[in-house]
Amino acid sequence: MTKYNPITPAILEQLQKTVGEEYTLIQQQITEEYGHDAATKNDKPQYPEVVILPKDTGEIAKIIKLANQYLIPVTPRGGGSGLAGGAVALYGGILLDLARMNKIIHLDREAQYIVVEPSVRTSDLQATAYQQGFLYAGDPCSNDQCVIAGNIATNAGGNRAVKYGVTADQVYSLEIVTPLGEIVTIGSRLKKNATGYNLPRLLAGSEGTLGIVTKATLKLQPLAPFNPNYLVVMPDLQGVVALVKEVLADTLLDPLSLELIDIKTAKDIEGYQNYPVFGNPVGDCLIVQWEAYSKEEISIRKKRLEEIAKKQGSLVVKAIDGDIIWPARRIWGKAIEAKNPLRFSEDLVVPVDKINEFIDILEDLSQKWTFEFRIAGHAGDGNMHLAIIPQPENTGWQTALPLLRQELYAQTYEIGGRLSGEHGIGFKRKQTLATLADPIELLLMKSIKMAFDPNSILNPGKIFDMEAV
Amino acid sequence: MTKYNPITPAILEQLQKTVGEEYTLIQQQITEEYGHDAATKNDKPQYPEVVILPKDTGEIAKIIKLANQYLIPVTPRGGGSGLAGGAVALYGGILLDLARMNKIIHLDREAQYIVVEPSVRTSDLQATAYQQGFLYAGDPCSNDQCVIAGNIATNAGGNRAVKYGVTADQVYSLEIVTPLGEIVTIGSRLKKNATGYNLPRLLAGSEGTLGIVTKATLKLQPLAPFNPNYLVVMPDLQGVVALVKEVLADTLLDPLSLELIDIKTAKDIEGYQNYPVFGNPVGDCLIVQWEAYSKEEISIRKKRLEEIAKKQGSLVVKAIDGDIIWPARRIWGKAIEAKNPLRFSEDLVVPVDKINEFIDILEDLSQKWTFEFRIAGHAGDGNMHLAIIPQPENTGWQTALPLLRQELYAQTYEIGGRLSGEHGIGFKRKQTLATLADPIELLLMKSIKMAFDPNSILNPGKIFDMEAV
Repeated sequence: MTKYNPITPAILEQLQKTVGEEYTLIQQQITEEYGHDAATKNDKPQYPEVVILPKDTGEIAKIIKLANQYLIPVTPRGGGSGLAGGAVALYGGILLDLARMNKIIHLDREAQYIVVEPSVRTSDLQATAYQQGFLYAGDPCSNDQCVIAGNIATNAGGNRAVKYGVTADQVYSLEIVTPLGEIVTIGSRLKKNATGYNLPRLLAGSEGTLGIVTKATLKLQPLAPFNPNYLVVMPDLQGVVALVKEVLADTLLDPLSLELIDIKTAKDIEGYQNYPVFGNPVGDCLIVQWEAYSKEEISIRKKRLEEIAKKQGSLVVKAIDGDIIWPARRIWGKAIEAKNPLRFSEDLVVPVDKINEFIDILEDLSQKWTFEFRIAGHAGDGNMHLAIIPQPENTGWQTALPLLRQELYAQTYEIGGRLSGEHGIGFKRKQTLATLADPIELLLMKSIKMAFDPNSILNPGKIFDMEAV
Repeated sequence: MTKYNPITPAILEQLQKTVGEEYTLIQQQITEEYGHDAATKNDKPQYPEVVILPKDTGEIAKIIKLANQYLIPVTPRGGGSGLAGGAVALYGGILLDLARMNKIIHLDREAQYIVVEPSVRTSDLQATAYQQGFLYAGDPCSNDQCVIAGNIATNAGGNRAVKYGVTADQVYSLEIVTPLGEIVTIGSRLKKNATGYNLPRLLAGSEGTLGIVTKATLKLQPLAPFNPNYLVVMPDLQGVVALVKEVLADTLLDPLSLELIDIKTAKDIEGYQNYPVFGNPVGDCLIVQWEAYSKEEISIRKKRLEEIAKKQGSLVVKAIDGDIIWPARRIWGKAIEAKNPLRFSEDLVVPVDKINEFIDILEDLSQKWTFEFRIAGHAGDGNMHLAIIPQPENTGWQTALPLLRQELYAQTYEIGGRLSGEHGIGFKRKQTLATLADPIELLLMKSIKMAFDPNSILNPGKIFDMEAV
């Protein structure tokens, strides 16, 4: 790891000159929230030496050049809602809070795209698109906290990836500041491009280690006139999984979302919201949504869904209000936490045709290690968000948890899965990644990092440590 | 540029030991075809010192390690149908002909994917998928000559990108041999993945400069029961372009292909095939294809197409046999060449909403420089394949052509276009790219190349020259 230098009074003065004194926070001005993200909120805060709130791309470029000159680490920060510690300043230095760069610059109705600054909240982006008759397809569950640059940094997936792909699939082009402080626009508003390497696809999911996104040009979809939602209740998880496969194989249905919620989580949500969203469920739940262009289409598809579900042994199939089911889906984590303060999260992802094996793995491990697994899974794309909860009788859970996780990861990789579907690696999962990833694959990634950021100043200690290169 | 070493008798012996003498071609054994690809077939051949035909990944890894040890350039070669000189051995050395690695390894019906070796011909891959009830969505017009590794190398788009995206969108994972001779599988059979950098997306479109694809796991789509095709004839090119916009904006139509053919090219194709494929066209043509799941859907959509086309002033709208129209579309280049031996190709790509401006640019330039432009455009994705033909009276065309091209490129970039939609840069376009690309973007690309291939042995001189770093 590069040896970083402290921010001296002289350097601080230069930073203040660059962005203005009021946007250069030090000491008591650095509030507690800057010490963690959503993944580390119960940990000891890790504070930067300075928080900087730049107003534009030019200021960021100047700061990054200074950081290279004096070897000071820079951690970019968006909504602070990350679930891997990606926005935490592990080595002090500068925390670059992009909060002031939060404007929607342009929405082009004819060409169906939108240009935004990095700190536009995802729900604001969605709402702006909606008001103009468009869908912005990215939809992480934390859409009211996260911002678009964070979505790009983790390549967030969300609820509509089954139809529209992940955040990277929504990106036409990005203006970035490189780790050496250069401003460059990568990519273009094209459906095809074979003009050199695909840099936007590399930046998306690089967790702020290869560049700071300062502007994004994103795709919009025409808004479908109808977006009906359905709740299907099945006798068990394997029933839900079998149904998901059938729905995906059916060429008529073309779902926008397929969300699995296990029965206990559904009940916890009902308790938390004090409302029988899932109708006091007698089994595990699947939320199905699609885009429809006519009422006929809706009724034809609903019939098909009912047929398929019935054949698979469904207990309930019913239309449900999106304004009720989606907020319920989004707060699953809080609802579980309210009843189970001790819960540990995972963001594993497996091939969709292996979800049944994954459920078997969870059931075996839960028995073996006396833990309970809860699932809010993006079942249509295999991204299985888990809450791992020690059973009350499990007094030795602290020892058991790392062993359980080790087995869970190994078995997930065995069926072709990976450690993170959309939350990223950050620093929380980097040790695990180091043991699970193909060493050559990891070496290729590190070589890119070194090529882009020879001084290792941009978001160091995330995804992997550079000592090992 | 690295100073490469010649292949000495001692090195040759090592190569022969690695792959067998019969698969190590030298001197007269190196046939003329190895001296060029489809882009350079009229140029002086550029021969490698040795052609090697490896049987498997292990042999390739050994060869690449030898090449690094002795600093010998290695040029990977697939079908030899490339249109940018990407498979030409510019610096001698080893030409790695992947022809023996041409097996379809596995097709998984349930999970809808196929695993193939690099030299599987694209049309064979398509046919195998079709026989099992699937669509392989990649479809470059040269599908009967090109191979899948070449499609990945150039990130070929083809005729169905409007619905299913480009070759990179079909890739789950790739086994590659890195430029240092390591074997690694990058990516995974997942719909989401936030586990480190997206390496498969970087490899796709890197034109064999960052790794040699030795195995590919690719997505399959369920085959639609119907794939009707339509021919629409419009009074002029702008009419076709306006129609394309309307079709894309219509949520019902969801086209698989939208192919523009100008009237003169349509007539040349009819002459070449001696068959009135386009019905002796009285205007510029659009081929429309979609996937349909019922006869009702076909008739509803056809009606909608007719309505939209009529409103735009169509001269003809008719159903047409796919077995007739697609072979005609594919041979456009040969048909033009038969009548116009002097023709120069372009693979420009522009935003779909800018195709009308692009047509204006072509018309202005054609007048100004006394050239004729022919277009076979993937109009649904903005990729405009051009043939540029000097008018008979243009005796100074040799001087004019580079000037015309310079203006064409500059104006294409001005409207947000790029140099290549799917053929790649190879060595044919690298000088142009060097003048058009953002220098920082190019520097980032070169830094990745240097990180992966520190000895610059893999496909050197393609996309860019490394001296400039």
